[in-house]
Amino acid sequence: MKVLVINAGSSSLKYQLYDMKDESVLAKGLVERIGMDSSIVTHKPAGLAEVSEVSEILEHTTAVRKVLSLLTDKEHGVIGSVDEIEAVGHRVVHGGEYFGESALVDGDVKTKIRQLFDLAPLHNPASMMGIKAAESNMPHVPQVVVFDTAFHQSMPENAYLYAIPRVLYKKHKVRRYGAHGTSHEFVSKAAAEFLDRPIEELKIISCHIGNGASLTAVQEGRSIDTSMGMTPLEGLMMGTRSGDLDPAIVPYVMNKEELTVNEVNSMLNKHSGLLAISGISSDMREITEGMQKGDANSKLAFEMYEYRLRKYIGSYAAVMNGVDVIVFTAGVGENSVVLRKKVCENLTYLGVELDEELNEIRSGEPRRISTANSKVQVLVVPTNEELVIARDTNRIVQGLKS
Amino acid sequence: MKVLVINAGSSSLKYQLYDMKDESVLAKGLVERIGMDSSIVTHKPAGLAEVSEVSEILEHTTAVRKVLSLLTDKEHGVIGSVDEIEAVGHRVVHGGEYFGESALVDGDVKTKIRQLFDLAPLHNPASMMGIKAAESNMPHVPQVVVFDTAFHQSMPENAYLYAIPRVLYKKHKVRRYGAHGTSHEFVSKAAAEFLDRPIEELKIISCHIGNGASLTAVQEGRSIDTSMGMTPLEGLMMGTRSGDLDPAIVPYVMNKEELTVNEVNSMLNKHSGLLAISGISSDMREITEGMQKGDANSKLAFEMYEYRLRKYIGSYAAVMNGVDVIVFTAGVGENSVVLRKKVCENLTYLGVELDEELNEIRSGEPRRISTANSKVQVLVVPTNEELVIARDTNRIVQGLKS
Repeated sequence: MKVLVINAGSSSLKYQLYDMKDESVLAKGLVERIGMDSSIVTHKPAGLAEVSEVSEILEHTTAVRKVLSLLTDKEHGVIGSVDEIEAVGHRVVHGGEYFGESALVDGDVKTKIRQLFDLAPLHNPASMMGIKAAESNMPHVPQVVVFDTAFHQSMPENAYLYAIPRVLYKKHKVRRYGAHGTSHEFVSKAAAEFLDRPIEELKIISCHIGNGASLTAVQEGRSIDTSMGMTPLEGLMMGTRSGDLDPAIVPYVMNKEELTVNEVNSMLNKHSGLLAISGISSDMREITEGMQKGDANSKLAFEMYEYRLRKYIGSYAAVMNGVDVIVFTAGVGENSVVLRKKVCENLTYLGVELDEELNEIRSGEPRRISTANSKVQVLVVPTNEELVIARDTNRIVQGLKS
Repeated sequence: MKVLVINAGSSSLKYQLYDMKDESVLAKGLVERIGMDSSIVTHKPAGLAEVSEVSEILEHTTAVRKVLSLLTDKEHGVIGSVDEIEAVGHRVVHGGEYFGESALVDGDVKTKIRQLFDLAPLHNPASMMGIKAAESNMPHVPQVVVFDTAFHQSMPENAYLYAIPRVLYKKHKVRRYGAHGTSHEFVSKAAAEFLDRPIEELKIISCHIGNGASLTAVQEGRSIDTSMGMTPLEGLMMGTRSGDLDPAIVPYVMNKEELTVNEVNSMLNKHSGLLAISGISSDMREITEGMQKGDANSKLAFEMYEYRLRKYIGSYAAVMNGVDVIVFTAGVGENSVVLRKKVCENLTYLGVELDEELNEIRSGEPRRISTANSKVQVLVVPTNEELVIARDTNRIVQGLKS
């Protein structure tokens, strides 16, 4: 079965076409600047050269039509006809308490995604546009939605509730939902496979550290706590997000700087984190370079970032009364040798022993970076959220047939 | 030397008179409802019966005059003349970055305390009223101020800065200050003495758990991180405070419920925590009773409280790359057998081994509650913030004389 995976943003649409026979990617690409008169489409068929073109794409339906025409293009295409696409899988950020797993799209599912617009005002409406665009272009193809929050629906009440008046939970759904669920699930399963151990026996701390970043405590294969909260703002220090903060700072700063609710949200989500402290960049590679050149602000940004990550690892060890496996993934987690080194150096009390040579090896494969004697296994596992979406979509649509 | 210790609130004034020869308390008491026509004064001379009277006390100067008249009263007094009081020590909540230690009051000190009104709008003005009241009643007696924040001034930059635009630190002093400093300092020193170990060699996690609650990581005798932040709202779940929260919840709730800055502050500080979750009480004793009677909300409140405390202990173990001593103090920390038991049960990965019998013993003395084999020493150390204030005051005023 061939599955098209779609990740729709408000003005962008990423896609990957999978052949589930061998889970190979036949083509992938990106439509950017949707809604503007010079949208950019970048298309990369497997084994062929990348093509890029500029055209007017005013909404997501046109974007999907463009993608389908590229996928079936005589020169750049990888399939003979759109009919070869048997299912479409969509990434959806917020599934609220409705979705503890992926779901086949129907009227009810779409209503629920719409009801969650309030909790994910930037993301869920974009996902809806992606779903509608795929439906209108491929009306007879089943659509599946895979949620960033679903894996975390297993969290117990004492981890997901905030200690605020309970009416806010009942009336406005204020609770911890987390994010990066497909990634945390993927890398924790991959870690157990790599170690050839049943995941049910393992206490895993999964560190998804990209521009957005979150940690998850995975016990018996289930998420029992995660660092992102009602929104992706809570938890670790990130590229441009503040992460944890005295909540009293929010009204204090609104007052002092006469900021509106939107302005303070924007400040904390877009102008904070590594960018605010370094004054240089939100990108860990540039921060590390700056630090190595002796820039004091980059050094401080790196230290705060590492420090806060380490505190969360310590916290989740206490959540599970110990830890067997620490997994690093996503852009920074997979690539920052120096961040992993600094974190692990200060976790020897847990029995973490980093193998510095293994830590330096770069590879696209799951790998161990702790020593053979390390009590805690430290792994790097490249994440693949699109593959999880393709697999879930395949599984659900295969289920329909049987 | 006899030292009068004053802890002034906006409508209250607590006092203790110490004889520093043997650090004994000669008398202590409380003036409540200052500014109302029926203020209540409660006075307890050592070895004598407590007396209580109602009178009109419209401001703090009158309150101090009343205290002095009780201390020298023929029937209820403990000193012959006010002149026997050689120094006054004041508790001040916020010392900002100005004060890393206690200080003799002069014009400059008062100016600085005033400059911090913005950061502690409820507390510092009250402290100022206490200082002025003591000065006007005892113009020739040296006054000393002891700050709740001073012990935490040793925190490194990566622990006290938030990952938000740095202009907020420079312009509005937004950073972590912490609180309960005198208590954390007192119990960590007392713990080292009890263990007969130099404090410089110990990694201590000090848990001050009262109606307000905070944790401190004490390494080499210095605070290197603490859970309260710019304000006492951050950190642990408390009696009526939320503790940690996705900062995005603040603008979200302000929007949904049309709350002002003051209203959201009030909600998070006064109507959250144990009270909000249990729906019954902010008092851990009542929560524990409720739980033992099978009340589901009390059980949930207890579980959240314990869970969050445990996460912080885990986090601070990672901060110091290990922990030698965990100290429990303050109302809940000294008295909640069940809370200490539940926390320690899930910290066996650190080498914590609770002695359940020792944990059940109630006493006013420092004591060990871990087993002889426990890798981590777990202690209960009753706190005594007034004694720290009296000692600091004594030391500074003795220094003036020499």
